[in-house]
Amino acid sequence: MDKNLIQSSGRGIPDIVVGRLPHYLRALQHMALEGRRLTSSQELSERLGISAAQIRKDLSLFGEFGKQGTGYQIDFLLDQLRQILKVNQVWDIALVGAGDIGSAIARYQGFENRGFRVTMIFDSNPNIIGSQVGAFVVQSSMEMVACISAAQIRIAMLAVPAVNAQEVADRLVGAGIKAILNYAPISLNVPEDVHVQYIDPVIHLQRMTYYLD
Amino acid sequence: MDKNLIQSSGRGIPDIVVGRLPHYLRALQHMALEGRRLTSSQELSERLGISAAQIRKDLSLFGEFGKQGTGYQIDFLLDQLRQILKVNQVWDIALVGAGDIGSAIARYQGFENRGFRVTMIFDSNPNIIGSQVGAFVVQSSMEMVACISAAQIRIAMLAVPAVNAQEVADRLVGAGIKAILNYAPISLNVPEDVHVQYIDPVIHLQRMTYYLD
Repeated sequence: MDKNLIQSSGRGIPDIVVGRLPHYLRALQHMALEGRRLTSSQELSERLGISAAQIRKDLSLFGEFGKQGTGYQIDFLLDQLRQILKVNQVWDIALVGAGDIGSAIARYQGFENRGFRVTMIFDSNPNIIGSQVGAFVVQSSMEMVACISAAQIRIAMLAVPAVNAQEVADRLVGAGIKAILNYAPISLNVPEDVHVQYIDPVIHLQRMTYYLD
Repeated sequence: MDKNLIQSSGRGIPDIVVGRLPHYLRALQHMALEGRRLTSSQELSERLGISAAQIRKDLSLFGEFGKQGTGYQIDFLLDQLRQILKVNQVWDIALVGAGDIGSAIARYQGFENRGFRVTMIFDSNPNIIGSQVGAFVVQSSMEMVACISAAQIRIAMLAVPAVNAQEVADRLVGAGIKAILNYAPISLNVPEDVHVQYIDPVIHLQRMTYYLD
């Protein structure tokens, strides 16, 4: 569980609201790709399984984005959400771990036009260092801190074994990383000003089996 | 966004509480592996970044699991949480998509002892069908519905391109699937009684960039 879930942002927006914004952005990007120009909180509600009232309330915390009767202009709302989430720029990402998951991330096409690109990948395994993964040559994790510091990268994705994850996270924090997306199935301890999100498929699966008969 | 987030379970437990239980379970499993026998809501709080009061309140919804002063017996609490989340059994999973992400999932070691095992993997690409991925031979997605129905599998992981995801999800629902973990960056429409959770790294990254300067 990341501490975001019990935090509010400095601007007083509850983190649970912040957590829904990327879902709105993704849905709007799909609509834009479909050539659509207008949408409504009702339509977003149907696509996302979030009530229309909740969507209107969430968006109203950031400004007046829609008009009653005409709904939301997709391009305008996209721009606004990208600004709010600070993905009206492209963030460089350092990827640590070039095993199965790291390699899949390195080749992942889903970052495009969404504010992120992987720019370096590290591993500690001498058999993997120097090999090509997607568009990248795997660098030694000995160079990790220096490379990340020099490039002033703020975001890392962590795809190393659970047993190594905390130690790598400590070094990433030392290199200036402020946001870690962790694929290792273990909770990380990081300073207050570092954000962590987790990707652990079992957590999601267990949340669903609760409801199965 | 999965509809679980705005649902309560039939037993009246808010889904947000259900969503925290797998995190408690994972932390307790790590403690058990470390040879530990007792823990406290304070220790869990430090590991998870959730307040000790919240942890005590969440667990108290399901029973009396700890004693004031002595804390929680790890083995007992593990057993209880496994029962509550229904992972005191092993659930078979059908994996759809044998590309980079699907292959990484097929080889993922993190399911072990956590209630799940992948038992079949499907793809529609004739060049991939019949090839070996981890311990599995990739089967044709033409056989998917029949195989899943015959094996009475309830859980699927979806690692196909976004453009195919809804169509595959519809067929999975037709085959009797009740829980889908979707890696495709698109929201799925499913019947009320089908649970969906999403793994989309960009959603997590965007939730963190909101807080970066």
